[in-house]
Amino acid sequence: MNAEIIAVGTEILLGQILNSNAKFLSERLAELGVDVYYHTSVGDNWDRIIEAIRLATERSDLVILCGGLGPTADDLTKEALAEFLGEPLEVREEEVEILRIALSKRKIDFRNAHNKQVSFVPGAVALKNDNGTSPGMAVKYDKKAYIIVPGPPRELEPMFVNYAVPWITANLLGPGHQKIYSKVLKVIEMTESAVEAGIKDLIDAQTTPTIAPLLGPGVVMIRLTAKASDEAEFQEIIQPVLAEIKKRIGKYIAAEDKETVLENAAALLKKRKLSVSTAESCTAGLLSASFTSLPGSSEFFAGAIVAYSNEIKEKLLGVPAQTLKEHGAVSEETAVAMAKGARKATSSDIGIGITGIAGPDGGTAEKPVGMVCIALDAADKQISQTNYFSGNRENIREMSVRRAQILLYNCLKEE
Amino acid sequence: MNAEIIAVGTEILLGQILNSNAKFLSERLAELGVDVYYHTSVGDNWDRIIEAIRLATERSDLVILCGGLGPTADDLTKEALAEFLGEPLEVREEEVEILRIALSKRKIDFRNAHNKQVSFVPGAVALKNDNGTSPGMAVKYDKKAYIIVPGPPRELEPMFVNYAVPWITANLLGPGHQKIYSKVLKVIEMTESAVEAGIKDLIDAQTTPTIAPLLGPGVVMIRLTAKASDEAEFQEIIQPVLAEIKKRIGKYIAAEDKETVLENAAALLKKRKLSVSTAESCTAGLLSASFTSLPGSSEFFAGAIVAYSNEIKEKLLGVPAQTLKEHGAVSEETAVAMAKGARKATSSDIGIGITGIAGPDGGTAEKPVGMVCIALDAADKQISQTNYFSGNRENIREMSVRRAQILLYNCLKEE
Repeated sequence: MNAEIIAVGTEILLGQILNSNAKFLSERLAELGVDVYYHTSVGDNWDRIIEAIRLATERSDLVILCGGLGPTADDLTKEALAEFLGEPLEVREEEVEILRIALSKRKIDFRNAHNKQVSFVPGAVALKNDNGTSPGMAVKYDKKAYIIVPGPPRELEPMFVNYAVPWITANLLGPGHQKIYSKVLKVIEMTESAVEAGIKDLIDAQTTPTIAPLLGPGVVMIRLTAKASDEAEFQEIIQPVLAEIKKRIGKYIAAEDKETVLENAAALLKKRKLSVSTAESCTAGLLSASFTSLPGSSEFFAGAIVAYSNEIKEKLLGVPAQTLKEHGAVSEETAVAMAKGARKATSSDIGIGITGIAGPDGGTAEKPVGMVCIALDAADKQISQTNYFSGNRENIREMSVRRAQILLYNCLKEE
Repeated sequence: MNAEIIAVGTEILLGQILNSNAKFLSERLAELGVDVYYHTSVGDNWDRIIEAIRLATERSDLVILCGGLGPTADDLTKEALAEFLGEPLEVREEEVEILRIALSKRKIDFRNAHNKQVSFVPGAVALKNDNGTSPGMAVKYDKKAYIIVPGPPRELEPMFVNYAVPWITANLLGPGHQKIYSKVLKVIEMTESAVEAGIKDLIDAQTTPTIAPLLGPGVVMIRLTAKASDEAEFQEIIQPVLAEIKKRIGKYIAAEDKETVLENAAALLKKRKLSVSTAESCTAGLLSASFTSLPGSSEFFAGAIVAYSNEIKEKLLGVPAQTLKEHGAVSEETAVAMAKGARKATSSDIGIGITGIAGPDGGTAEKPVGMVCIALDAADKQISQTNYFSGNRENIREMSVRRAQILLYNCLKEE
């Protein structure tokens, strides 16, 4: 079974918007075990939309069209598919009621133009739109299948996952059909090649599941992938390999699947009823902002002090002038003093200090751009480290934040 | 003249990477006045790549292929084009030398496999790769034109702009060809409909340039677009309309083209030799991080204090307990006291305070999620405002940061 994705919209061809729908749909179809051979984008042009549908019908089993579902004259997708199939579009009364309610919530009156939004070809199933007014459509026709979903990702994504995927599963995939499942392990404190070396024999011997180490943001990910009829079967397939990997490098696995190291560090803070604070120079509040991006962060996050100048480091964080003079603003000694200062100023259990050179200027031979010192201070523990990151200012600041999160996670885990 | 963009790579069809190249190339082609009618993506599959080239040749004047230019066996793009054209690929000696140098910088020896990277069909022009090892290729053949560029955006983007665009201009666009130019005005303190109402007669009467108001991040953008032979002619075309718009709403225009309100606020701070500091609750350092994302920010940015709890607001920012008790942590009074506290703690000229409810929890009927108070405190000025934002936690924090940047810009501009 293979599929083709057609994105409809002149704004895509003008480069005004990114076709992120093709990526989203392709990922979901890959999980379903459906091969995607082509992506196509066409503008809001009657002849070219029909031609794209004709071509896709010729070469694919399932044609997914996205965009062009609204009530205006340049929304042509459903009409073009009906024209291609040689079928009429008929207003479906039960959908009119749903649309009336959706419109009234948005203070819009139902007008004649809205009828096209609730028109369908015979035999089609309406796909519910929980975040907009245009329902989607799914239909089988002459051994081929067609799905139409709206263009805005916040409407398309839940509609596809909640309504189109079940329709595909029930109508297009046979009972023995296997989907593709994956499990991801997120490894910290090991390089990609160290991870690879540690499980090389498993990788070399792999048949099912496949095992692939890859570089993620701040972590090394190990992805286990296998075809299975359901989640339980998948878990059974990966169990021996998973157990062996965990036996070897389990203590470096900081998160699994959608979990992040940050979330797991926050969970440990909450569990132990500990609070954390930050003192930041080059990251200037980004570490603080990362903690507080988690809902309920006031439970474990005490506060932050952004200290760019030496003067502020002394005044607000109590970094000794002597430390700054002897070791410099970018040094482990200063990072430790900053961490202590944050902890004291906010009366928190753990303080984290970051000081570094994010560039593009300010680097020297001894202390180059990308050098970032990170320290953690707690009642019974004091850790500091110096990192050398590469990339631009934004990259260096982002990697510093991730390193600090990992340092905190490690410290909490070990305790 | 019209073009089609073909992205080659199985990882695109699996949804593992986003096809951002199609957007980038479409934007550049739109600027050149070249119409793009189709985007296509195909996998690393010999037959399907050739079929995609055949189809694109049939329906487009210029075919742009991206990806599949490397030295490995699954890099097929150049070979597939040569096969389609019925032409041989010949190693070009002068390119071998360039590749040897590029490889040696990366500590890689030139091997036989690298010969394919420097092979070209007869008559083709090599496009230089300033950020990688694979050159691109441009060739005219039988009234059609073909351009091949590498897949990684950091290689493709400069190659296309610096080498492919001049080739297209010199070889495919006639001497009278007009390109599309735009100018963008970024308006603050006005809603999109107010902007539209303010220049409605100009929009209604528009022929050239076209005038389009649209919603940007934190600002309303007015885009003036016209075809012209060069930049000077474009400036002449838009001059009357631009002057009229500036006459009417010039004082609300905070930035033009690629400038941001933040950059312009920073420039005003530097010009006046003023420093700024922040006291942040719900944004938790994001405003601080936005200032320090600009290189050289230590010139004007003094520091920040992130105060989540009332205790820290009192202790580090000196917010009076009475203010917190009477007006609550989320109030203009508290925001003002925070701004004052930041200014004092960091000895800066201007302090900005932000306190609000980013959600998802913590809202009440009186103080709902999305309510954010922002204040600015300077020696001779004190401003505060209450905003009601919608969206999720991330949206609310982002909009708060943008509002604070606008508040600062306005304050500096008016002085």
